[in-house]
Amino acid sequence: MGRKGRRAGPRIGKRFHAPGTAPGTLRPLEAPPGAKPVKVTVIDYGPGHLEEKVIERFEDLLPYRDAPNTTWINVEGLQDVALLESLGKHFGVHVLTLEDILNCGQRPKLEDYGTYHFLVMKSLALRDGCLEIEQISFILGKNYILTLQEIPGDSFEAVRQRIRRGKGMIRTAGADYLLYALVDALIDEFFPILEHFGEQVEALEDQVILRPSPEIVQQIHAVKRDLLVLRRTAWPERDTLSAFSREESHLIDDETKVFVRDCYDHIVQVIDMIETYRDLTSGLQEAYLSSISNRMNEIMKVLTIISTIFIPLTFVAGIYGMNFDPHTSPWNMPELEWYWGYPFSLTVMAVIAIALIIFFRRKGWL
Amino acid sequence: MGRKGRRAGPRIGKRFHAPGTAPGTLRPLEAPPGAKPVKVTVIDYGPGHLEEKVIERFEDLLPYRDAPNTTWINVEGLQDVALLESLGKHFGVHVLTLEDILNCGQRPKLEDYGTYHFLVMKSLALRDGCLEIEQISFILGKNYILTLQEIPGDSFEAVRQRIRRGKGMIRTAGADYLLYALVDALIDEFFPILEHFGEQVEALEDQVILRPSPEIVQQIHAVKRDLLVLRRTAWPERDTLSAFSREESHLIDDETKVFVRDCYDHIVQVIDMIETYRDLTSGLQEAYLSSISNRMNEIMKVLTIISTIFIPLTFVAGIYGMNFDPHTSPWNMPELEWYWGYPFSLTVMAVIAIALIIFFRRKGWL
Amino acid sequence: MGRKGRRAGPRIGKRFHAPGTAPGTLRPLEAPPGAKPVKVTVIDYGPGHLEEKVIERFEDLLPYRDAPNTTWINVEGLQDVALLESLGKHFGVHVLTLEDILNCGQRPKLEDYGTYHFLVMKSLALRDGCLEIEQISFILGKNYILTLQEIPGDSFEAVRQRIRRGKGMIRTAGADYLLYALVDALIDEFFPILEHFGEQVEALEDQVILRPSPEIVQQIHAVKRDLLVLRRTAWPERDTLSAFSREESHLIDDETKVFVRDCYDHIVQVIDMIETYRDLTSGLQEAYLSSISNRMNEIMKVLTIISTIFIPLTFVAGIYGMNFDPHTSPWNMPELEWYWGYPFSLTVMAVIAIALIIFFRRKGWL
Amino acid sequence: MGRKGRRAGPRIGKRFHAPGTAPGTLRPLEAPPGAKPVKVTVIDYGPGHLEEKVIERFEDLLPYRDAPNTTWINVEGLQDVALLESLGKHFGVHVLTLEDILNCGQRPKLEDYGTYHFLVMKSLALRDGCLEIEQISFILGKNYILTLQEIPGDSFEAVRQRIRRGKGMIRTAGADYLLYALVDALIDEFFPILEHFGEQVEALEDQVILRPSPEIVQQIHAVKRDLLVLRRTAWPERDTLSAFSREESHLIDDETKVFVRDCYDHIVQVIDMIETYRDLTSGLQEAYLSSISNRMNEIMKVLTIISTIFIPLTFVAGIYGMNFDPHTSPWNMPELEWYWGYPFSLTVMAVIAIALIIFFRRKGWL
Amino acid sequence: MGRKGRRAGPRIGKRFHAPGTAPGTLRPLEAPPGAKPVKVTVIDYGPGHLEEKVIERFEDLLPYRDAPNTTWINVEGLQDVALLESLGKHFGVHVLTLEDILNCGQRPKLEDYGTYHFLVMKSLALRDGCLEIEQISFILGKNYILTLQEIPGDSFEAVRQRIRRGKGMIRTAGADYLLYALVDALIDEFFPILEHFGEQVEALEDQVILRPSPEIVQQIHAVKRDLLVLRRTAWPERDTLSAFSREESHLIDDETKVFVRDCYDHIVQVIDMIETYRDLTSGLQEAYLSSISNRMNEIMKVLTIISTIFIPLTFVAGIYGMNFDPHTSPWNMPELEWYWGYPFSLTVMAVIAIALIIFFRRKGWL
Repeated sequence: MGRKGRRAGPRIGKRFHAPGTAPGTLRPLEAPPGAKPVKVTVIDYGPGHLEEKVIERFEDLLPYRDAPNTTWINVEGLQDVALLESLGKHFGVHVLTLEDILNCGQRPKLEDYGTYHFLVMKSLALRDGCLEIEQISFILGKNYILTLQEIPGDSFEAVRQRIRRGKGMIRTAGADYLLYALVDALIDEFFPILEHFGEQVEALEDQVILRPSPEIVQQIHAVKRDLLVLRRTAWPERDTLSAFSREESHLIDDETKVFVRDCYDHIVQVIDMIETYRDLTSGLQEAYLSSISNRMNEIMKVLTIISTIFIPLTFVAGIYGMNFDPHTSPWNMPELEWYWGYPFSLTVMAVIAIALIIFFRRKGWL
Repeated sequence: MGRKGRRAGPRIGKRFHAPGTAPGTLRPLEAPPGAKPVKVTVIDYGPGHLEEKVIERFEDLLPYRDAPNTTWINVEGLQDVALLESLGKHFGVHVLTLEDILNCGQRPKLEDYGTYHFLVMKSLALRDGCLEIEQISFILGKNYILTLQEIPGDSFEAVRQRIRRGKGMIRTAGADYLLYALVDALIDEFFPILEHFGEQVEALEDQVILRPSPEIVQQIHAVKRDLLVLRRTAWPERDTLSAFSREESHLIDDETKVFVRDCYDHIVQVIDMIETYRDLTSGLQEAYLSSISNRMNEIMKVLTIISTIFIPLTFVAGIYGMNFDPHTSPWNMPELEWYWGYPFSLTVMAVIAIALIIFFRRKGWL
Repeated sequence: MGRKGRRAGPRIGKRFHAPGTAPGTLRPLEAPPGAKPVKVTVIDYGPGHLEEKVIERFEDLLPYRDAPNTTWINVEGLQDVALLESLGKHFGVHVLTLEDILNCGQRPKLEDYGTYHFLVMKSLALRDGCLEIEQISFILGKNYILTLQEIPGDSFEAVRQRIRRGKGMIRTAGADYLLYALVDALIDEFFPILEHFGEQVEALEDQVILRPSPEIVQQIHAVKRDLLVLRRTAWPERDTLSAFSREESHLIDDETKVFVRDCYDHIVQVIDMIETYRDLTSGLQEAYLSSISNRMNEIMKVLTIISTIFIPLTFVAGIYGMNFDPHTSPWNMPELEWYWGYPFSLTVMAVIAIALIIFFRRKGWL
Repeated sequence: MGRKGRRAGPRIGKRFHAPGTAPGTLRPLEAPPGAKPVKVTVIDYGPGHLEEKVIERFEDLLPYRDAPNTTWINVEGLQDVALLESLGKHFGVHVLTLEDILNCGQRPKLEDYGTYHFLVMKSLALRDGCLEIEQISFILGKNYILTLQEIPGDSFEAVRQRIRRGKGMIRTAGADYLLYALVDALIDEFFPILEHFGEQVEALEDQVILRPSPEIVQQIHAVKRDLLVLRRTAWPERDTLSAFSREESHLIDDETKVFVRDCYDHIVQVIDMIETYRDLTSGLQEAYLSSISNRMNEIMKVLTIISTIFIPLTFVAGIYGMNFDPHTSPWNMPELEWYWGYPFSLTVMAVIAIALIIFFRRKGWL
Repeated sequence: MGRKGRRAGPRIGKRFHAPGTAPGTLRPLEAPPGAKPVKVTVIDYGPGHLEEKVIERFEDLLPYRDAPNTTWINVEGLQDVALLESLGKHFGVHVLTLEDILNCGQRPKLEDYGTYHFLVMKSLALRDGCLEIEQISFILGKNYILTLQEIPGDSFEAVRQRIRRGKGMIRTAGADYLLYALVDALIDEFFPILEHFGEQVEALEDQVILRPSPEIVQQIHAVKRDLLVLRRTAWPERDTLSAFSREESHLIDDETKVFVRDCYDHIVQVIDMIETYRDLTSGLQEAYLSSISNRMNEIMKVLTIISTIFIPLTFVAGIYGMNFDPHTSPWNMPELEWYWGYPFSLTVMAVIAIALIIFFRRKGWL
């Protein structure tokens, strides 16, 4: 989004309406520059029936609402407030639901509005190593599902294929099963992302010990940040799915709930992995600090050994570099004129050096 | 408040009454210097009716109490204990409620006193980057709401506008809906403040890695402190709203509770964001420490390399600076008189220096 | 207590009876040296009646036990086991209650013994910045309260004054209201102490960044320790008050429970503040470590800059201090006899110094 | 697995199906290179009866399904999807169960499918100090148990021996008791592994204090990682066993539940130990950092003492090495020609050195 | 146990049976070398009756089983599996109970086996500053108690004395009261041990600030480890006592439960203290790190000041030690022949030194 790649994580919690706004005030979502226009597609299907269509005018939707087939209406792009208001009117959607659809910072949740269920989930994607999160709103009616997405995206392509191929029970089961299939597709998006982070963590584990560099601090912090975002997404989705699988409603079949429970198992597994990676990254940070301290110790040891050996030697050399005149008095540096003076001084130095080396060996520094 | 800008956070927990005071002892709140006098305004409205008035004498309030319209009585400033006592007497307010209104360090809470509900919330504001918190007390009666504020403020201006314009359901719904609208306005105040902290955290993330400076420690600590205050405010408000949305009372309509639940969703979202920022700031502190340790390593490496290379060279130079007299004995520094003596000594030094440079390269320090 | 002021916190968990002692074994509390003798005072009051008396002989107490007025019997000092045993016999106090009264390390708790309620709370005081904790035991009977204190103290003076002045409902309400009033006085003691710690934390916040000194480590640790003690006191008091406000008992009036709930709100507020201060102190410790690391960096930078600049210069000077004889060979330090030799050597040094200064500027160290 | 021994821990969370796949899509598990073919064994037993057999064709299994004896069917290797589908058809296994069997990253869980119970557990093994985890799926039917393992392994050999020897109640109790016995064998695998980690932690405790080396950081991190994996396995197994011991089902006998509760006690004990080791390893990391800091202090002390003593001495020697000509002026280094000049200079040096040594002793550095 | 005193803590979690062993397999506990043989003592008592006896043959026990008096059978040493099997047969003890008695790593727990209750607790002792833990198993039957201890010990001597003296209610109350008395004696063992750790923590608090030495790291780690072990013991004992005090059973009297609740209060108090000490020790470790960093700063300051002052001075001395010949050219070190040359050079040095000292004072380092 034009920001430097360094801070790859998504913005956290940036969307809100102005304080004091009346509930149900619908503020159109600013379309990102270069966005495509809002696109509404319909898939209407039954055991032996399949119709896919792109809707141009809102009125074309209404027949599907009342038909006995299962209908999946997918809205991509949320710029068109008029469309949403029509939806609200013709599908009996509460004004608070519409507001939640437009304010894309909602937590995942499931709400029962009597004639329909409103479900908020998140879609995840990695683009260039950068985690992106999009809100997906579902409205589950008697025989239709409305999905509303902010960005035109393809999280659901696999489900569409399954409907087209008509394999499995998707064609025969109702709208609630379709809801499950779509939610399951969203939950499945976690796994490749988590694998990506798993690999990153393993790569960092190697580097932290072998080549601790300042860039690693950044990378660890970035992974932590992304895991935080994933966690913030996964936990409420877990609560939502738990509620979904226990919801008493005429709109949701008992058989479907078995599948939702399976989906719940998956999100629990996802949370497990997120928490494990979080623990590992914390461990990494500590290991990094220890590793850096070790490096420092090594550096200081080299400095200390070299300095400590040569400083006394240089001092001895300095002594014999003094210009006291041996001729002035017999006490003035008579060594300078000794026959063995120079070898004597070198021997003194060697003795000092060897003593220090032994001392360092005793300390275990060499 | 005349305190240095450095410690920008609000004072935490400063107001309490003297130990052993009888419950219900009303101690007037010291007005801040230069405060305006207590101001009581009334907005009385119904579907086709709107009256706004500033009340000068307490007796003028009484007619509104018994009228069938919805009345919102707003008291700004809590210095006037006599006024509060009149309120207590004429509106049947319990002495403990009055005490809580005056002791402004209350936690947000909802209490059912039978004839009225007492609700305590907080109003938040950022003034010059400095977080300020004010207690707002609500008394919800059959057809009136009393709001009591410490500081004259405008958190509710947007609600007032909505009443004046008469759009939405605010004119037709009762006092409980008005209470919801006012509380919602308070919760909405969190979002711009959180956005402010979000931006601060992102700015700090960049600086921590690129330019770790001592000021950052202060800034991180200040953000942490403010988030702590926000958290301490948001959690009990969440509990209060949860209780509000589940309260069984003839004063609160079921339809209103749907809206309160929406408000509850918002505060949960707020808490989510606060916890995320807290985690991020903790991560920042750790990243800062790592970053500082890295800097130290770099500094020490430069010192060590330079010292370790030059100290032995200087020693060699020191040797040949000794004044042993080569004429006294053939053993006294004959090098000094060799034909190639000086080039030899320079070569020795160069060899030492190159050996050390190779050693450092092997270590990966160069 | 004759210990050095440095470790100001109270002893934690020092009192216990010998392992295997039979339950109900009453071991007299050692009176601190110079303690006053046990003092028993009675305040007997009703709507129009007030009698205060110091009791010399135990038998003088008995008439009050059976009188219809509310009686508050206060025992200061626990050295007199015979007195306690008489109390046990004449007031029907269980032997485990008496044991708990004497073993002053009890956790705050409320116990229903059928004919009376036994309540343990703590009294807090700051003496010379030093936190002191005393156990206060309450026995609530039908129309009397027994309070037992270890140290003669005045936590209840304000309540006594209220009884004497006869204002508020204290004279007309029963023994349960008196119990509430006394407990409320104990809870109120937290607030000035917390204000004290709040000020200390703020003072430390300034010092940690501006003047990090070794003493601060000690002070932070001491504050942490005291907060730990406060926390350990406040949490069980919270549980106790919660139980108190929900207790179903003929000894406790429903009206009183409303007041106890207010008291419960206060202790929750206290816990909130304690937790906030604990978080702040943890933050302080981290900020301190960062601050210290920063200082170290600064120190090392100065050392590195000075050393790194002068060590090469000194080496160059050392070179030209070697005593090779230029007359022996044309290769032996001919520079020494150059016309511009000395200025040349100074120039070499200046170039080295300037190069290094530029290098450090590039690194951002200067 | 061909990876370097350094990162010994198991891969965490690597197996998942492609997003959007239909539930119940069975994807064959890739057999590891060099894997043996799928092996199906049957043990059919009753009080006086025992038959062990390797099954070659699936049809041979069917008689056992309907026989009154208890039958244990063990499948080793999950590459053969056709086999699993046959199982599904003939034993009435739900398609979600089959999918969970093949997706080996399941969390331990117990699911009631009406005609059978599905239980997922983990088998643990240490190979060359390297923790390996395998998923074991159990299907408990009326009189049979199906166990499905990914890798041919021998976790159950001891149970097989017990069946063969016919001691204890295993021959007389039903399939539910066999399930308990198998699960108990899996739980028992934790103990030798935990003992291994216990010994490693104790070994590290010694090294951290006495010989802190960079390798220890790695080892501590590896232990932490493995404990994380164990923990992630043990906690859901605890939940599963708790559910198992409370399950109301016609397939599970009350008497068996007593044994399952014992098994539950064991896993609680395992978790206790894991948490203890985790706490100890965290403590180790902190102790390591402290230990490293101590080392650094010691190193710096040596450097500082030696440098600080000799640098001033070398300076004094440097002074008297200056070449000012004493003959040019009486002020130019007259010391050089003093009778006691050289001893004087040595005395000055000795005084400086002794003063510094006393200074360091005062500081407690020597 | 022949291990070095350094690692004083008890082994954690070392005892387990081989994986796959049948439940109820009794493996004799290896007697420690030099252990006394198993000793069985009986105390049979009633209001006016007391008999103490050492049992040689198992058959001698049987009369006590059926007698109406309360009988306490104490088994010291668990090497004799045959004895345990006899107990199992004649006292109707379940095989899982016997297995738990022998596997001494059990968590404290209370189990109801219908005809008896099985209780596992721990006995604690400090031997030479070294924490030792022993498992004590209790079997509470209708009118008898069986206690089984691994090591011959005297935790119960005080209870035995109370039975002998016949004071209090111990002689008149039944076996359940005896169980309470014994458990209470075990809980009381915590207090002197906690006092020991309390003193150690206080001693460490002084040392950490005043004399941080490497040994302290070890000591803090050892205290942490021991507190971890205590905690691991106390928490399940708390749960056990809570269950005990709420157990509905014909074997446990309501009056006894009052005493058990008192005992429960004690273990809660113990846990409180353990958690407090754990928090304090964590604080100590942090204070230690801060203290060490401070020391390092101080050391580095001394080094930096001395080096930074003398290195430039030595350089100046080095300059004038160069051997440029002043006679060769007027530019070659004319200072050497100046009349005030030497005083001039000394002045230059003094100015540099004073400037640096002022600089350091400004920095606050002197």
